[in-house]
Amino acid sequence: MTTESSFIDSALRGWKSNIERADQFFSALSEDQLLQQIAPGKNRIIYLWGHLTAVNDALLPLLGFGKRLHPELDTMFVSNPDRSIPVTVSGKELKCIWDEINESLWTGFSKLSASEWLQKHNSVSEEDFAREPHRNRFTILLGRTAHLAYHFGQAKLAE
Amino acid sequence: MTTESSFIDSALRGWKSNIERADQFFSALSEDQLLQQIAPGKNRIIYLWGHLTAVNDALLPLLGFGKRLHPELDTMFVSNPDRSIPVTVSGKELKCIWDEINESLWTGFSKLSASEWLQKHNSVSEEDFAREPHRNRFTILLGRTAHLAYHFGQAKLAE
Repeated sequence: MTTESSFIDSALRGWKSNIERADQFFSALSEDQLLQQIAPGKNRIIYLWGHLTAVNDALLPLLGFGKRLHPELDTMFVSNPDRSIPVTVSGKELKCIWDEINESLWTGFSKLSASEWLQKHNSVSEEDFAREPHRNRFTILLGRTAHLAYHFGQAKLAE
Repeated sequence: MTTESSFIDSALRGWKSNIERADQFFSALSEDQLLQQIAPGKNRIIYLWGHLTAVNDALLPLLGFGKRLHPELDTMFVSNPDRSIPVTVSGKELKCIWDEINESLWTGFSKLSASEWLQKHNSVSEEDFAREPHRNRFTILLGRTAHLAYHFGQAKLAE
């Protein structure tokens, strides 16, 4: 393995292990358990799972892998706070969507070369990227891994 | 910047931004606020901060930067659960320790070359590392960044 690919390998392992532990946790919960709040007055578990799923879905166009698969998740899990509008997706359905999105992401990740990882993501202009070359795909991957860990830590408090 | 150094730059930016937002949050709290639980029956905020500080301290020998600066933190914040033994460090003292450790880590991080980032960390044997070359310093950095985000997400629930 080259030096470059070793760095990418580490980052992809980090992503995958965080996805897997979140998956094990969320997938094992019943529909009733998913509707519980992580703490009094805080988000419900299903909201955090839906939020992470929607944010992962948005990575597809951001990283140039294609269109979003489930933009309908945003109304429920991103642009509105929990309990302000009805969640119309079940845990069982969310599990299918979550798997579908994560598989598409993994396929996209696996095809990128080292130089492609360092290319700009799709929410930064050419001009801004020239000044701030760290706004690349690799930085997005690391940032989203931390975002996943952040909310997973919260979800685990419900145990 | 070379391809290799771009990957390292992304990871160090991720580390730094997670440290900074944790620092801003914890440092702004009063001694009384630090003694509050993040949710009923859960860890107190100072426990999470002390835990993150102790885990960062342990990175110094793990990454070959030198001896631990504050091994005394482990009894309070790592090897025992919150409230099982008295916390004898104040928030003000913890802030100094946290800064001291993070500055030492940053000095160490800044000196590593690309190939040194991919060398084994000090808790893996030569034999195991030959089989599992991903058990290197870079993977530790990414893992500890996610660990920081995980507990910071929990601490933020106290807001």
